[in-house]
Amino acid sequence: MSKIVHVVEDIMSANDDLAAQNQYKLNTARVLGMNIMASPGSGKTSVILRTIEALRDELRLSVVEGDTAPVSIDADKIIQAGMTAVQINTGGNCHLDANMLRQALPELPLGEIDLLIVENVGNLICPAGFKLGTHFNVVIASVPEGDDKPYKYPNIYRGIDALILNKTDLLPYIDFDVDYFKRGVQMLNPDVVFFDVSCKTGAGVDVWASWLKNRVRAFQAQQG
Amino acid sequence: MSKIVHVVEDIMSANDDLAAQNQYKLNTARVLGMNIMASPGSGKTSVILRTIEALRDELRLSVVEGDTAPVSIDADKIIQAGMTAVQINTGGNCHLDANMLRQALPELPLGEIDLLIVENVGNLICPAGFKLGTHFNVVIASVPEGDDKPYKYPNIYRGIDALILNKTDLLPYIDFDVDYFKRGVQMLNPDVVFFDVSCKTGAGVDVWASWLKNRVRAFQAQQG
Repeated sequence: MSKIVHVVEDIMSANDDLAAQNQYKLNTARVLGMNIMASPGSGKTSVILRTIEALRDELRLSVVEGDTAPVSIDADKIIQAGMTAVQINTGGNCHLDANMLRQALPELPLGEIDLLIVENVGNLICPAGFKLGTHFNVVIASVPEGDDKPYKYPNIYRGIDALILNKTDLLPYIDFDVDYFKRGVQMLNPDVVFFDVSCKTGAGVDVWASWLKNRVRAFQAQQG
Repeated sequence: MSKIVHVVEDIMSANDDLAAQNQYKLNTARVLGMNIMASPGSGKTSVILRTIEALRDELRLSVVEGDTAPVSIDADKIIQAGMTAVQINTGGNCHLDANMLRQALPELPLGEIDLLIVENVGNLICPAGFKLGTHFNVVIASVPEGDDKPYKYPNIYRGIDALILNKTDLLPYIDFDVDYFKRGVQMLNPDVVFFDVSCKTGAGVDVWASWLKNRVRAFQAQQG
């Protein structure tokens, strides 16, 4: 008699349970968790550094850095900016999962922060499938990646609250149809909020940072 | 009594067997197979179109397009350039595998071509783990992705023969240390051959195309 083994279902269900536990810990500490996903080289760490710069006097924040290799290039930059960073080395795996974040949480000063930024592994596909326990998802796209990405990698755009279009300073040098790009995202996700940003010049960072700060304050008010 | 289930090993071993069968089919037809891997938006399809343009009078080639979604944006471009293209929709999966290529091969005019270009799914992590049966691997990096990628995503650079650095026309506008980037790749892979290319201006395409043509000719001479 044959037996069906539900390995994938079990893995996803176990991940969802751990994600719920992570979110409970964050809620108890009144920490809003944000999961940032993007292609390699879209500027995830640069956006985080600009966000720290913009909000350092108003919000206390920490960063979890997801890397596929043990190098700590990104975590070092966060620490140089004066914030706590914990690196998760996935050992070649293509995404973070809830169990990895669970192991990172005890290393973080949850009682002393308002916002936890999780920088996922650079990948437009795999991170979309795994809940971490953070409260919302953001994708960073960048102008040089091309305006057709929502049409070619649709899944990652579906569950996000905000999309940051980074490297807008390169628009004069690259054929990138901003309307075509945004229409592609909106077809998948009508409620997404867009932010046009250049981490190089700083353009648009204030609007993004203000939205993020309001989101943290609303969350904390809700938690009481 | 517990029993260890070697699911992952079995999957990889089955993939390697199918890859060997694919390579046998290519060898029999005297077709050199090239697997192109890269981040989303590095310019894989643009490099392929430039390669077609440069070699169309000297080599007969076909293209397999790996996509995570059913949109055929890239395959359409290849067909518009007058070449046969077969699209593999991975259904959300983050890489091609040998079984997918096996199913695509009968759709290709193997008896009438010299070179089969396989454009893998845009991803710097997952494609590195799966042999397809092609004869060699190429990674396309692009200047806007940043010069630290070999340090952060090392696995993909290990098994490649050539690295194309694309979008060199953007070097004046982006902080990208070409030496630091290439040193990172060479640490992982001392024998890699570098090609600096701009698909926008066409700079460097001739050197790349010449290397590729010589490689096809050497392969065909070897097959007799």
